Amino acid sequence: MSRIKSIAMIGLGLIGGSLAKALKRTNSDLYIKAYDKDREALLCAVDDKVIDRACIDMKEATAGVQLIFICTPIDSISILFNELKDLLEPETIVTDVGSTKKAVMKSARELLPDDIFFIGGHPMAGTEHSGYGYSEAHLFENAFYILTPMRDTSIEPVQSMVGIISSVGAFPLIMDADVHDEVVGAVSHLPHVVASALVNAVAEIDDPSRFKERLAAGGFRDITRIASSNPKMWTTISLMNRQKLLKLTKAMIEQLQSFY
Amino acid sequence: MSRIKSIAMIGLGLIGGSLAKALKRTNSDLYIKAYDKDREALLCAVDDKVIDRACIDMKEATAGVQLIFICTPIDSISILFNELKDLLEPETIVTDVGSTKKAVMKSARELLPDDIFFIGGHPMAGTEHSGYGYSEAHLFENAFYILTPMRDTSIEPVQSMVGIISSVGAFPLIMDADVHDEVVGAVSHLPHVVASALVNAVAEIDDPSRFKERLAAGGFRDITRIASSNPKMWTTISLMNRQKLLKLTKAMIEQLQSFY
Repeated sequence: MSRIKSIAMIGLGLIGGSLAKALKRTNSDLYIKAYDKDREALLCAVDDKVIDRACIDMKEATAGVQLIFICTPIDSISILFNELKDLLEPETIVTDVGSTKKAVMKSARELLPDDIFFIGGHPMAGTEHSGYGYSEAHLFENAFYILTPMRDTSIEPVQSMVGIISSVGAFPLIMDADVHDEVVGAVSHLPHVVASALVNAVAEIDDPSRFKERLAAGGFRDITRIASSNPKMWTTISLMNRQKLLKLTKAMIEQLQSFY
Repeated sequence: MSRIKSIAMIGLGLIGGSLAKALKRTNSDLYIKAYDKDREALLCAVDDKVIDRACIDMKEATAGVQLIFICTPIDSISILFNELKDLLEPETIVTDVGSTKKAVMKSARELLPDDIFFIGGHPMAGTEHSGYGYSEAHLFENAFYILTPMRDTSIEPVQSMVGIISSVGAFPLIMDADVHDEVVGAVSHLPHVVASALVNAVAEIDDPSRFKERLAAGGFRDITRIASSNPKMWTTISLMNRQKLLKLTKAMIEQLQSFY
């Protein structure tokens, strides 16, 4: 496979928009098409010279490109795969940006044609905001960008992805999807569950003089800051990584019980 | 009771040293005596003009002073009360700086004479270091400083303590010892238990490729930072606040179980 010259962005929010900006900045000859239900985002990106073409549907966006980035919310991915499956030309690389990987890989295996290359992706970057308006070209610099190829994917498309990811300043890390979900579950999803549980446990204490809010400093703030991040997104992530997260939460409960 | 003119510091480590420095800076006519098993700390403090007299024992240190700060580790407080009880003159104010208050108040009631005023204290300030060498005059500025008087203590000595605490820039907060242990347990001790449990739960995961340490960022680091602080001190605090902490840990476990 030759160097990637044309890509499609499906979804041009914070991640999709930032990827397009980063790719355009470092690969000026890359041809970028994009599709998003939000026409405003598409028109902004054309104005910003971040994309070369705003498409009216997925068919137009994906036609003739070598690489398709699916940058939509993770719970819409299998619906998207169903829409995509008849549009894909052989040897197209398809990737996503979801925070859990096992479920996405399963959907890809079941729904996408065998003659394309699906390589799961998880850029470990983001902000508390969402939408194209907050996207920025530097979002992925020095961030880990996990790739979860299928076991039978040949090395060439993986190398192409590694090249693209590296070009935006991220560190590609190739992992098995199951290992990804366990490790990311441990260092990212479990801390969110724990932080929420801590906030709830402390909220239950009777404290009519409101001493708690005055004294909640240092350690407590450090722990609970993440509990305030996007609840809808975290509900989806928790459900998508349910199996690993239940195992991790169980281990956490056992640790707390051993404290007695 | 007139304005406090003479005090004794028993223990001249990080907290005792910082209190002496802060008091000397803002109350230049205050006469400060100090006793510490560590002669080096005492001599340094004399050199620094932070104390007026380095004493050879508790008797010398406490003789004739209006206020005694006990700034030793919390697990040595009842031993100290036993040594102090026959040295105290009537109407002396005695206070401590321990992180839990109910156990200290109980010891004070049982061991100290009835004609002195014991007012529990908990300055919510500190650093990860210990010892006089790390003490600083500004440690208490804008920090909460909790006072837990006994129910039958008259208002005058409490007002004297409030004045002294305020003079070093701290915010005095008068609380019941039981409420203190519950609230501080919730916002400070429980987060330490939770952080340690999280570190242990995640450590159990099989991860030969050491992906975890690479990916542990943001939320995980925020939560687990406090798990690395002084384990000996936190073991003591946990044991001193055992009853409240077990109740809080139970509430935390129930929150995690409700996640299923």
